[in-house]
Amino acid sequence: MKKLNKSFASDNWSGVCPEVMIALQQANAGHVEAYGEENDFYTRDAIKKFKTLFGDDISVFFVYNGTAANVLATSHVLRSYQAIVSAKSAHMNEDECGAPENFGGSKILEIETEDGKIRTGQIEPFLHSIGFQHHVQPRIISISEVTEKGTVYTPGEIKGLTDFAHSHNMLLHMDGARISNAAVALGVTFRELTTDVGVDVLSLGGTKNGLMFGESVVFFDKNLAKDFEYTRKQGMQLHSKMRFISAQFDRYLTRDLWKKNAQTANRMARLLEKSLRLFPQLNIARSVDANGVFVSIPPEIIPRIQQHYFFHIWDENTSEVRLMCSWDTTEEDINGFAEALKKILQH
Amino acid sequence: MKKLNKSFASDNWSGVCPEVMIALQQANAGHVEAYGEENDFYTRDAIKKFKTLFGDDISVFFVYNGTAANVLATSHVLRSYQAIVSAKSAHMNEDECGAPENFGGSKILEIETEDGKIRTGQIEPFLHSIGFQHHVQPRIISISEVTEKGTVYTPGEIKGLTDFAHSHNMLLHMDGARISNAAVALGVTFRELTTDVGVDVLSLGGTKNGLMFGESVVFFDKNLAKDFEYTRKQGMQLHSKMRFISAQFDRYLTRDLWKKNAQTANRMARLLEKSLRLFPQLNIARSVDANGVFVSIPPEIIPRIQQHYFFHIWDENTSEVRLMCSWDTTEEDINGFAEALKKILQH
Amino acid sequence: MKKLNKSFASDNWSGVCPEVMIALQQANAGHVEAYGEENDFYTRDAIKKFKTLFGDDISVFFVYNGTAANVLATSHVLRSYQAIVSAKSAHMNEDECGAPENFGGSKILEIETEDGKIRTGQIEPFLHSIGFQHHVQPRIISISEVTEKGTVYTPGEIKGLTDFAHSHNMLLHMDGARISNAAVALGVTFRELTTDVGVDVLSLGGTKNGLMFGESVVFFDKNLAKDFEYTRKQGMQLHSKMRFISAQFDRYLTRDLWKKNAQTANRMARLLEKSLRLFPQLNIARSVDANGVFVSIPPEIIPRIQQHYFFHIWDENTSEVRLMCSWDTTEEDINGFAEALKKILQH
Amino acid sequence: MKKLNKSFASDNWSGVCPEVMIALQQANAGHVEAYGEENDFYTRDAIKKFKTLFGDDISVFFVYNGTAANVLATSHVLRSYQAIVSAKSAHMNEDECGAPENFGGSKILEIETEDGKIRTGQIEPFLHSIGFQHHVQPRIISISEVTEKGTVYTPGEIKGLTDFAHSHNMLLHMDGARISNAAVALGVTFRELTTDVGVDVLSLGGTKNGLMFGESVVFFDKNLAKDFEYTRKQGMQLHSKMRFISAQFDRYLTRDLWKKNAQTANRMARLLEKSLRLFPQLNIARSVDANGVFVSIPPEIIPRIQQHYFFHIWDENTSEVRLMCSWDTTEEDINGFAEALKKILQH
Repeated sequence: MKKLNKSFASDNWSGVCPEVMIALQQANAGHVEAYGEENDFYTRDAIKKFKTLFGDDISVFFVYNGTAANVLATSHVLRSYQAIVSAKSAHMNEDECGAPENFGGSKILEIETEDGKIRTGQIEPFLHSIGFQHHVQPRIISISEVTEKGTVYTPGEIKGLTDFAHSHNMLLHMDGARISNAAVALGVTFRELTTDVGVDVLSLGGTKNGLMFGESVVFFDKNLAKDFEYTRKQGMQLHSKMRFISAQFDRYLTRDLWKKNAQTANRMARLLEKSLRLFPQLNIARSVDANGVFVSIPPEIIPRIQQHYFFHIWDENTSEVRLMCSWDTTEEDINGFAEALKKILQH
Repeated sequence: MKKLNKSFASDNWSGVCPEVMIALQQANAGHVEAYGEENDFYTRDAIKKFKTLFGDDISVFFVYNGTAANVLATSHVLRSYQAIVSAKSAHMNEDECGAPENFGGSKILEIETEDGKIRTGQIEPFLHSIGFQHHVQPRIISISEVTEKGTVYTPGEIKGLTDFAHSHNMLLHMDGARISNAAVALGVTFRELTTDVGVDVLSLGGTKNGLMFGESVVFFDKNLAKDFEYTRKQGMQLHSKMRFISAQFDRYLTRDLWKKNAQTANRMARLLEKSLRLFPQLNIARSVDANGVFVSIPPEIIPRIQQHYFFHIWDENTSEVRLMCSWDTTEEDINGFAEALKKILQH
Repeated sequence: MKKLNKSFASDNWSGVCPEVMIALQQANAGHVEAYGEENDFYTRDAIKKFKTLFGDDISVFFVYNGTAANVLATSHVLRSYQAIVSAKSAHMNEDECGAPENFGGSKILEIETEDGKIRTGQIEPFLHSIGFQHHVQPRIISISEVTEKGTVYTPGEIKGLTDFAHSHNMLLHMDGARISNAAVALGVTFRELTTDVGVDVLSLGGTKNGLMFGESVVFFDKNLAKDFEYTRKQGMQLHSKMRFISAQFDRYLTRDLWKKNAQTANRMARLLEKSLRLFPQLNIARSVDANGVFVSIPPEIIPRIQQHYFFHIWDENTSEVRLMCSWDTTEEDINGFAEALKKILQH
Repeated sequence: MKKLNKSFASDNWSGVCPEVMIALQQANAGHVEAYGEENDFYTRDAIKKFKTLFGDDISVFFVYNGTAANVLATSHVLRSYQAIVSAKSAHMNEDECGAPENFGGSKILEIETEDGKIRTGQIEPFLHSIGFQHHVQPRIISISEVTEKGTVYTPGEIKGLTDFAHSHNMLLHMDGARISNAAVALGVTFRELTTDVGVDVLSLGGTKNGLMFGESVVFFDKNLAKDFEYTRKQGMQLHSKMRFISAQFDRYLTRDLWKKNAQTANRMARLLEKSLRLFPQLNIARSVDANGVFVSIPPEIIPRIQQHYFFHIWDENTSEVRLMCSWDTTEEDINGFAEALKKILQH
């Protein structure tokens, strides 16, 4: 089997963590009712794990990927004339090829941010549209936890946004593709980041933190979840052999596997930051809150480093690149990267 | 781990065949470029296998499930005012919760059939709509191979439909969720069933024949495939850790694994048919072409058999049930079913 | 100005009745607030007229045409996974180029009918889908009054359908493009045909009975109407100079103008029927309930008659044609048609 | 009949100009083939007028309103994963309740502008997305002529944008809801503003300049227009009594009626500007290129003026209001407004 060098491109270049791989093998026994129906005990068990962590009043549904989780979670609670307010940099807005607009028919009202986090003062101007029939009606505030710029909302900041949302008949959606990294960074539980601070609907990711495939949509109000099974099926996201998503999530939420994986990724990011700070030619552009490091590198050497360790350029204008650490990043990888960098900078 | 009795409910109640499970484990090594991009050699290799079997002029794309394969394959080549002609019983028409209408905006023009197969004479009335601005414009004929009623189109029948389609500026789509079972039943290659008889676009399934997840869309004309990557991404069907779909398909198409699995399922269906014919109280309702047996059973005993071996009722009016065999069905299962039946019928 | 012969093609080949033309001129005075907002007294007055005829609890909205009235009325109360049940021959199903499927994303479940009218027994099979996540969920029954086959539902028949709908958590939509002709035919009020028998939402047409443009959507429950203004605007159906639709409807519903126009059309249809019955070569195929006459004519003479009076062929197989009478059809037209027919048949 | 004071709220608060009203009456004679089909000579004649003004290679279609013209013109030439680039302030982006996103499924990529006009340098950053499957693909540049901020693109500026568009495989759409006002302001023909400078598709408005209802979509390449009749029908924009839109446009484009009406509106705007400049308390915020005047007024007196002459507040932060002149605005109206203002400012 051929094997690429470890990269810092994205946490989805990594594979499946060993514990999840074992869970998949164990779930591969005999026949199980398809589509997560009532006799699929893998799905039943996985949902129980979610309730342990988020509280009993949630409704959980599994889908294939993060784009689907975001799009179905929001479109299900929106009519097409209602809009999503999000950061301009949000994955939903920029990196889902227009899926939210196409599937739900809803417009995204975008907010420019420096750090990927939106503030209530930036949402206020959109409230003028409420009741004006020519304008889309803002109905969901969507935030990413971790943001696309590597920052993390505190529970207090989230509470501020949900309070604002609810006082204006709006809902709060959290794109939690990397919620595990955020929880670890803040030293809080999932519950403290969501249920306790009024989040209405959550996309909870697993693929970026050690799963093979599968993401989940969590509704914190059963009324919002009503009929979601039809939205999921019509959204082409109902897996027939559902047990193979459920078994992954069951294991992921057992014995803090989610935490262990995220801790590794976050710790490696801090280590990477530390080793990069030793190079005066580099500039750490943003706060390293979770598992991503954003750093400005002299443009002429970028292609040379990429030959050793691949990563993506974040902003060509500022020569800022994004280095993502994963559940499988090792100190050896960090040291190797630093050494490669050193050699290139010395020449 | 709990374990359900083997069932005859559907070929998606079974698990993953051992060869594919091993391929998944082998693919789980180090980092691989995400999204099936050019450095993902798993995806590259899998596509080569498709070309070996279907010819070099195809374009192949992986998606998550069969609904997505059908909906994206057809909507990509349609404008919303163009319509799909299919059998009323087609999966696209009845079992995808309106996904084709919702995602592509296209209407399905349905044809009543006895055996799940449509004939050109039944399509002709829809041709009157061509050029009439009040009517949707028929543009795709979609057939299922195997059909939802367990029957199989011969290559000659398919050729008749593609010739008809092409002579009226239409295309032919094949829902090949069970194409392996059809090829085995007919003793032909994939190529003889598709490329050689003029199929334009194919949904080729794997999940029902031993895969964990993943289906594919095959275009037989590269012009039709143009820009499909955007349709897939916008359709929420682009897997980040693509190698785990690709590696499954690579193995599936290697050393005739697809054929081995389908042969087992088909052989078990014939065996099941044979053993059911011994019961004078039962009536085999349809030709057993592939891996499904449709049989009328006295209604009062259905729930009692279902307690031992679960299956779905196909038509309540005729008390017809559907018994599906899978790659993992064994002679022991067939005998067990027959014995359970015998005991129940004797009382 | 060139002028075509009067035709029997459709009631939308006729022009605008004189009373409505005068109303349009009178409304053309000075500035009026756009979009039917609160200072547009024309719209306010027109809505009052609707309330006089249908009761105070309705909500009324004006749109441009009948397709829009049908599509917006139904899609507004549906989620995309919910379906419309209608006759196969329904305008929504066959003659709106897939607009319901495209705009609302909803599937139409079609029922074959002989006379254009659906019966509850034909809807029952669709109820099996309720609660099954793979199937669209039937939510609206849509009927046409007058039907596309020229027949009329009695209030009792409508009550039977609405009772059935409501007992299964469904709604009843009436496509009333020709409701005036139905009311006149039955000798009942609008209220007796709708409010009193439980109709939930109505498309009330004007264009086919003497208006220049404009149709209306009437909700009989204000909760169903909530936020419809956004659906209308997003549906591209909000007229800026709204007064010019409102003024037409105001006049249309004043001093029984709607009734006068429909009475003429219906009376002319009966007269036409009577004169056609004198020809033994012709066969009146359907009951002449309203303003349409369906008659089988020897196919070889159809083009020759069409040169004098144009009409559409309804069914090529049975050589059945549709002859529509309009508010402006005169006895002279009927006699002229009969004479032309006579001459042609004599040769 | 009640009558409101003349207002400066919008050019769609005015009525129908007398010439068009007469044309409507003249068109109301006898039967005419519906839906603009080939025997509708009104539609045929109106299209000829368009060809005289824009050249013979165009295709013209009538729709009901400006939102529909914009949405159908663009969605017809787009796939849902392709995007529209426009000014943030564009009507399509802000004032159509999300119709472009909902009907076509396409995202709008917005550009902040000071004066409503976009420059090629602002479009360039979006080109980075081309070929990247996660991003929508920019395909149409949409400009408004006149812009929503009252400014006008010169033919040279438009040429710069179309050249840029075509060199990047993009198209240029012009929202010409007020194209007549722009042509008059620049002293150029329609042809010089569109055909001659490479515009690909145009929404040409009439309602804001004296029509009762009806707008048009003009394609400058017949290949782009192919099958548009189905998009229009499915888009709920096919008028049955088409002659009543066609007859208005025929008259509008005859003997320079469009020009006469626009000249009046533009002249009145300049007169209004002149009289407002006499008040030192007011600040004319933008260049008065066409028929709109944007002026900052002390906020405390705005409601008092609105009681006499209604208008809309454009920007609450800067106390900027928009005063629109129409084909029916008179010197008396301007003087009346100035006098009312004078009295209020003196107190």
